[in-house]
Amino acid sequence: MHGRQCTTGPTATGYTPDPMLNLAAPTDPSWARRALADPAELLLDHAHCEKKAAGVAVRLLFQYPQHGFMLAPLSRIARDELAHFEQVLTLLEARDIAFQRQRPSPYAGRLRTLVRAPEPERLVDLLLCCALIEARSCERMQHLAEATEDVELAEFYRSLLADEARHHGVYLELARRLASADAVRVRLAELAAHEVAILAEPSTLCRMHT
Amino acid sequence: MHGRQCTTGPTATGYTPDPMLNLAAPTDPSWARRALADPAELLLDHAHCEKKAAGVAVRLLFQYPQHGFMLAPLSRIARDELAHFEQVLTLLEARDIAFQRQRPSPYAGRLRTLVRAPEPERLVDLLLCCALIEARSCERMQHLAEATEDVELAEFYRSLLADEARHHGVYLELARRLASADAVRVRLAELAAHEVAILAEPSTLCRMHT
Repeated sequence: MHGRQCTTGPTATGYTPDPMLNLAAPTDPSWARRALADPAELLLDHAHCEKKAAGVAVRLLFQYPQHGFMLAPLSRIARDELAHFEQVLTLLEARDIAFQRQRPSPYAGRLRTLVRAPEPERLVDLLLCCALIEARSCERMQHLAEATEDVELAEFYRSLLADEARHHGVYLELARRLASADAVRVRLAELAAHEVAILAEPSTLCRMHT
Repeated sequence: MHGRQCTTGPTATGYTPDPMLNLAAPTDPSWARRALADPAELLLDHAHCEKKAAGVAVRLLFQYPQHGFMLAPLSRIARDELAHFEQVLTLLEARDIAFQRQRPSPYAGRLRTLVRAPEPERLVDLLLCCALIEARSCERMQHLAEATEDVELAEFYRSLLADEARHHGVYLELARRLASADAVRVRLAELAAHEVAILAEPSTLCRMHT
């Protein structure tokens, strides 16, 4: 399943996240219904998310030119994110939703406040934050695909799952080039716990990560 | 020819730049030989150039989200540049040249000092600077393809010409969405004259744009 779908999806006994996603807790099952209350707002947020994901990968190319092992994988991720961005733009245009500035969810910014300052810890944390954002995006897109009655959107979300799961894995692999497997596992668990705490904060925004 | 090659190439009477490139003067015919004096340094610069070209396009996506007409074209250009970056990385790796920081050519920075501050002039100028950089890159890659005895490099440079010429055209078209055709023509000629003056400054660096 992994590689085509990032979670095992809901079962008779409830939601079972794929352990490969490394999330500390699954999304509240009521989230997708709330997020889909304003599909235009959610789709606009999605476009911003893809653009920001590309921006982060490109920024890392400039900040760490000395880490040759990261350059091609980050560049490929950035290209994927830009392609997704263009796909969301096409959907927005077809639905007469103007792309515009939008109040962002505090999620990614809050997550990055945990990044340690010294190197290589800083880069390890940045990569693990990216890995967690990809994992959560993947998990939530599957929720959205299952909850929406909009067939076009459901297919679109499903079409992104494999890329999101793959990006999660690539970011983890890159972190493992900079720290031991144990150190990565411990730090990932710490960041993942924080990620869940950030998502638990109350928010009225219709966003992919609230 | 245009779309496959960006210049008409050398003829019996000398080098004839394709007028569609909008360059104010052709590259000195001795440039390619000088640039190829240190192929490793030149190839490393090329990688940085592709990365910077992607970075500029992505930055414009963030700086001008209100200009919906630019977003998909800029995103596609950024993807192309990242793909070229990965291609250069592959060539560097095959030749055991480490990707690393390198003293940049002052060219792009000097060109951008001419960008006017008020909008929409700022954006028009940024787009025209990008158009000129793409044009010059295209022209110079054709010089390199013709001058190098390295068959692999010659083929690689030739494979990029169509993209460079297309990007030049896309940046021009985007500028024309923000200013009249006459205003764009006049400003492009001004910037193109400066671009030639910048390239005429003496430099000992082996770079794509010196």
